[in-house]
Amino acid sequence: MKIIDIIELKRDGKMLSKEQIDLFIDEMVKGKVPDYQISAFLMASFINGMNFDETYYLTDAMLNSGETLDIKEISENSYDKHSTGGIGDKVSLILIPILSALGIPALKMSGRALGFTGGTIDKLESIPGFKIDLSEAEISSQVKSVGAVICEATKKFAIADKILYALRDVTATVESIPLIASSIMSKKLAINNKALIIDLKMGSGAFMKNIEDARKLAHTMKDIAIRYNRLCKVAITNMDAPLGYTIGNDLEIIETIQILKGERKSKALDISATLGAYVLKMLKGVEIEEGIRMINETIENHTAYEKLIEIVKAQGGDISYIKDESKFSLSNKALSIYADSDGYVKYDAYKFGKISLLSGCGREKKNEKIDYGAGILFNKMDGEYVKKGDILYDIYCNKDISEIKLLTQSASRILSEPFERQLIYEVI
Amino acid sequence: MKIIDIIELKRDGKMLSKEQIDLFIDEMVKGKVPDYQISAFLMASFINGMNFDETYYLTDAMLNSGETLDIKEISENSYDKHSTGGIGDKVSLILIPILSALGIPALKMSGRALGFTGGTIDKLESIPGFKIDLSEAEISSQVKSVGAVICEATKKFAIADKILYALRDVTATVESIPLIASSIMSKKLAINNKALIIDLKMGSGAFMKNIEDARKLAHTMKDIAIRYNRLCKVAITNMDAPLGYTIGNDLEIIETIQILKGERKSKALDISATLGAYVLKMLKGVEIEEGIRMINETIENHTAYEKLIEIVKAQGGDISYIKDESKFSLSNKALSIYADSDGYVKYDAYKFGKISLLSGCGREKKNEKIDYGAGILFNKMDGEYVKKGDILYDIYCNKDISEIKLLTQSASRILSEPFERQLIYEVI
Repeated sequence: MKIIDIIELKRDGKMLSKEQIDLFIDEMVKGKVPDYQISAFLMASFINGMNFDETYYLTDAMLNSGETLDIKEISENSYDKHSTGGIGDKVSLILIPILSALGIPALKMSGRALGFTGGTIDKLESIPGFKIDLSEAEISSQVKSVGAVICEATKKFAIADKILYALRDVTATVESIPLIASSIMSKKLAINNKALIIDLKMGSGAFMKNIEDARKLAHTMKDIAIRYNRLCKVAITNMDAPLGYTIGNDLEIIETIQILKGERKSKALDISATLGAYVLKMLKGVEIEEGIRMINETIENHTAYEKLIEIVKAQGGDISYIKDESKFSLSNKALSIYADSDGYVKYDAYKFGKISLLSGCGREKKNEKIDYGAGILFNKMDGEYVKKGDILYDIYCNKDISEIKLLTQSASRILSEPFERQLIYEVI
Repeated sequence: MKIIDIIELKRDGKMLSKEQIDLFIDEMVKGKVPDYQISAFLMASFINGMNFDETYYLTDAMLNSGETLDIKEISENSYDKHSTGGIGDKVSLILIPILSALGIPALKMSGRALGFTGGTIDKLESIPGFKIDLSEAEISSQVKSVGAVICEATKKFAIADKILYALRDVTATVESIPLIASSIMSKKLAINNKALIIDLKMGSGAFMKNIEDARKLAHTMKDIAIRYNRLCKVAITNMDAPLGYTIGNDLEIIETIQILKGERKSKALDISATLGAYVLKMLKGVEIEEGIRMINETIENHTAYEKLIEIVKAQGGDISYIKDESKFSLSNKALSIYADSDGYVKYDAYKFGKISLLSGCGREKKNEKIDYGAGILFNKMDGEYVKKGDILYDIYCNKDISEIKLLTQSASRILSEPFERQLIYEVI
């Protein structure tokens, strides 16, 4: 069996065996499969699909292509959280201190994100001094002392995924359920945590656009987790409007602080509470309602906020920023957008993703510099009643805003009738 | 519109516009589209197909990507012949002298073939001294004096096709009707000939396996030719058994000489006669039956054979080989295969293709050396009644024959009942 025969089988819609998928991934990781064959394989897999067994074999081959990490002292009691990516998504930043305050340790490793906004570690890096490159000894000791670590990957997990992902991005083969599921799960399974909670975003600002596909992806990921004896829940959540009242790096840290202090309401907290409650249920057998009560308590009694300070301090960050978020120096307030009539404001997450990228929040290429101070601060929330002349949101940006200005024209609409968006569609 | 958007459209089965296809091909020829994007596009086009308009746009874009050639003195009266490739296919070698003897000039340019056996120019190069790299002045003068030239391409025709073809070969995207049709036609249309005759091989030794696909491909190519105001006929012919009684380079030249001298019968002549008759009909309005009579006359009166000598002489070849084909020094007669029972022998073209490649007749990679003296000489023809112990065929080969030996076990069968294969399925 040669690589081209495997491509041909997938081209013709045939099911691939474990041996064939292993061979493809092994040879690929050894550098023996040229990019053009990998991308032909990806396109054939995208169009013709893969069944569950193939997706599981692919996950397993990718998982085995890299190293794994097992911190014995915590793995029986720890969880990992993954988001498929959304606009204004600071859920990890909120959830980790909350659960840590409740005695559930988190070991979260992420890569730098490509996309509309920075990823979790980019956001944390906007806190002066915050260190994301930790040794394994540092991680182990911090998990034990503080109960949470958020850092860069220390090992080469799922090497095959990096190769595939780089090509998927440039060959229009990203939005494929088997390819997404195997990509996520191969990385998540590389670190031994008992439970996994996945926030599957759906809507204009996410790559999943409809509930059928989202359900399929959720079940695929969950069924893969089960094969590895992990506990897993997947929440399908709304990404038609940006999440919370900020988008950006500094700005989302500020929102996180305000939420954990209990100063402001945010849908980002509502989602965090639900995800957290499911983790408590998986690991501690706590009922969902009780879990949400426990979580709200960590906000009221500031234990989650104190935990955030502890994490930042342990990783070398300047905690004076957490104690006084006005210390963050945002970029220029370049543009304020006003309501042009009375009514209910409706935002489009996708447009705000583009605005945030143009404002400097995110990166399109690796090693591109991020403007931590850039972003969007909402004055009026999606669905809120506004009056003509109200400020809807401000854009912080040190770049040219002409293209952003154009985008703002279609990023919001004012409707005469009230509307509601379901925040959490389903938990699978 | 970016390249990735075009890939995405084809991925989703959408029809591409002329502008989109032109953009893709233009950027590709400029070297701005990386291989992995080209192969993703090829796989998407393979699986989702292209309709006639897209195939025509693709042909046109590829044609325009390269140079063209127009030799005014002959183009109104000349034809080109193309074969989609078969085992033992020496039809061009037979047809060109025949039609040339009847006053129909041929300007045939080919590249070196990759595949089971050498291409037409490889075969001609087995004649000592035969020159295939001619200047345009030489071509023009030879067409006028001799009436036929068979040489390498002098210009860079259909540059885009070379890029696409190299990738199709290694990404399992060869056997696609729109991709095949556009590849063939972009090259054929680059040289101005009034008529085009295409020999579309179908069967185990060809890439077309069934009549429905063959018909579709034939109609696509013909309809493209019509858009360029060319006359075109496509003959769908049998490639389940090797064509004629030889496979190889020296050996096929020997068969050609013997056929043109009228010394031996061969199905290669039957196909040549039919294709030639259609050319005579297209260019001279001659009825098919009369055309075949005229062609047979060129064999009987040796005018076709004399024309072959003229062509070889004009291109610097040693005509003593044409006058006495025993001068060709074949490779070692390495293996003789005998009938193991009485009955009707049935050959499998595909297996003989593999045997001929292993014996050294063809090449898998550019610049690989060909063994001109290698090949297969059939003693008994496909369908012929044989007696146990009769020699079926001899293999000439200077290489290791262990793998060949294995292949011979399944390359022929002896049947108890007579059978017939249709030689020409349809002319479209």
